[in-house]
Amino acid sequence: MDADALARACADAMWRDDRASAGLGMRLEQVAPGRARLSLAVNEAMVNGHGICHGGFIFTLADSAFAFACNSHGLHALAQHCSTTFIRPAHRGETLVAGAVERTGDARAGIYDVRVTGGDRAVVAEFRGHSRTTGEIFQIAEG
Amino acid sequence: MDADALARACADAMWRDDRASAGLGMRLEQVAPGRARLSLAVNEAMVNGHGICHGGFIFTLADSAFAFACNSHGLHALAQHCSTTFIRPAHRGETLVAGAVERTGDARAGIYDVRVTGGDRAVVAEFRGHSRTTGEIFQIAEG
Amino acid sequence: MDADALARACADAMWRDDRASAGLGMRLEQVAPGRARLSLAVNEAMVNGHGICHGGFIFTLADSAFAFACNSHGLHALAQHCSTTFIRPAHRGETLVAGAVERTGDARAGIYDVRVTGGDRAVVAEFRGHSRTTGEIFQIAEG
Amino acid sequence: MDADALARACADAMWRDDRASAGLGMRLEQVAPGRARLSLAVNEAMVNGHGICHGGFIFTLADSAFAFACNSHGLHALAQHCSTTFIRPAHRGETLVAGAVERTGDARAGIYDVRVTGGDRAVVAEFRGHSRTTGEIFQIAEG
Repeated sequence: MDADALARACADAMWRDDRASAGLGMRLEQVAPGRARLSLAVNEAMVNGHGICHGGFIFTLADSAFAFACNSHGLHALAQHCSTTFIRPAHRGETLVAGAVERTGDARAGIYDVRVTGGDRAVVAEFRGHSRTTGEIFQIAEG
Repeated sequence: MDADALARACADAMWRDDRASAGLGMRLEQVAPGRARLSLAVNEAMVNGHGICHGGFIFTLADSAFAFACNSHGLHALAQHCSTTFIRPAHRGETLVAGAVERTGDARAGIYDVRVTGGDRAVVAEFRGHSRTTGEIFQIAEG
Repeated sequence: MDADALARACADAMWRDDRASAGLGMRLEQVAPGRARLSLAVNEAMVNGHGICHGGFIFTLADSAFAFACNSHGLHALAQHCSTTFIRPAHRGETLVAGAVERTGDARAGIYDVRVTGGDRAVVAEFRGHSRTTGEIFQIAEG
Repeated sequence: MDADALARACADAMWRDDRASAGLGMRLEQVAPGRARLSLAVNEAMVNGHGICHGGFIFTLADSAFAFACNSHGLHALAQHCSTTFIRPAHRGETLVAGAVERTGDARAGIYDVRVTGGDRAVVAEFRGHSRTTGEIFQIAEG
């Protein structure tokens, strides 16, 4: 299995399990080795009375993109430490896109950068995640 | 109005607006000047197939506690930058408690530390948030 | 050997090795299990033309306090990840004090908070360090 | 004056003032709008007894690269918050290179990523810095 097929197979296995991301309405747009892109439409339940999205949902979208990217190499990986800078508010009705890219890493640990953009492509948040592999291998059925 | 009454009035005004925190099932347990404590029971919609809570919900709980604490002084404050370390997983059915405490700050900016603990009082996550005031003042009706 | 004596013995072993901290003029003021306090006078070589201390020296002082605190339990520990917020400038001639306190931890990993204060006791910087033990044990001669 | 010439003029003005970076032995290798590269040879005074460089000097090099990059647009900018992940030790005699690149920013605030590499081009540290402009403009003499 090549690296791209492995990344997709890992993502399929994760997505089946990940009721949280699906339940919030996230869509897995793309996955590749060390990369992932997810989107989320900001709805009524995610905003405060002024129509501004709670930062927790922006983080959760970025964290899911990070998870799909750092689990794309065939080994289970967990988030250890994440930091997020909130740059502009996100609004009800806006579709956010989070693109995660591996910055550095080896078999044990990695650093991933995630940019979250809004409807106008402007940057809503910048996220950096640090992952660590657990030693467990994805169980992937051969086609 | 004394500092404690002001903190409660700000929290009441925020809570009325904050459909997101209430919608996830959070409870505002306590608020005081520079401090807040919120709780959240981890439910089916927050977990993956292994019963482990998505880190985004742990962050969101901590972020809400941070927001109530940094908005307790009568001035609107926004999260600028947050970092979180995930220490142990949280599980379905567990009630998480996030306690936020102001570490340092002045009228413009502040740093708040939030500890999230699980059912056994063990630490699930450590969060640090950086806030900045917007210049807006809470509109609070006198008694 | 009790925990306090062990902390002092670890600090003695580290200080003998640590030419960098001593060479910059740091003083080890106090060490205890999970805690350390170091000081540093800001000199001509640490400032720019406006007499403002380069942030790198403030970080280095905080990082040394973190190192003494996280190595106080008898096991070699290394810094993995550190973050610092610069709150006010430090000036030539000012003596900075960095106090490190363990926030959470177990035998493998820990989080330490370091506050750096200036001549007026005002906060100059807030630092958080994440450590990981290497498995190596301090070789300490019995008295 | 074009953006490249402005970046060089700002760097010249900063370098004249920055006794700290020069005093440690740093070299300014390159500067461009939103970018800077500096190098530092790890010497005897920067290491502990095992020949391992104190993390504070790695941070200081990265912080200087960040400062030259975020001050390249003609406005004075200050570091607000920095985080660093230490990936492998640096050794006595090794020349470290820190390359800073602007990730996102506007006239008031910016995020810069700095990678520090060692003699073998392997990554020693990853640094992210958050800057804020002060409102002051660089005084640059026209040629």
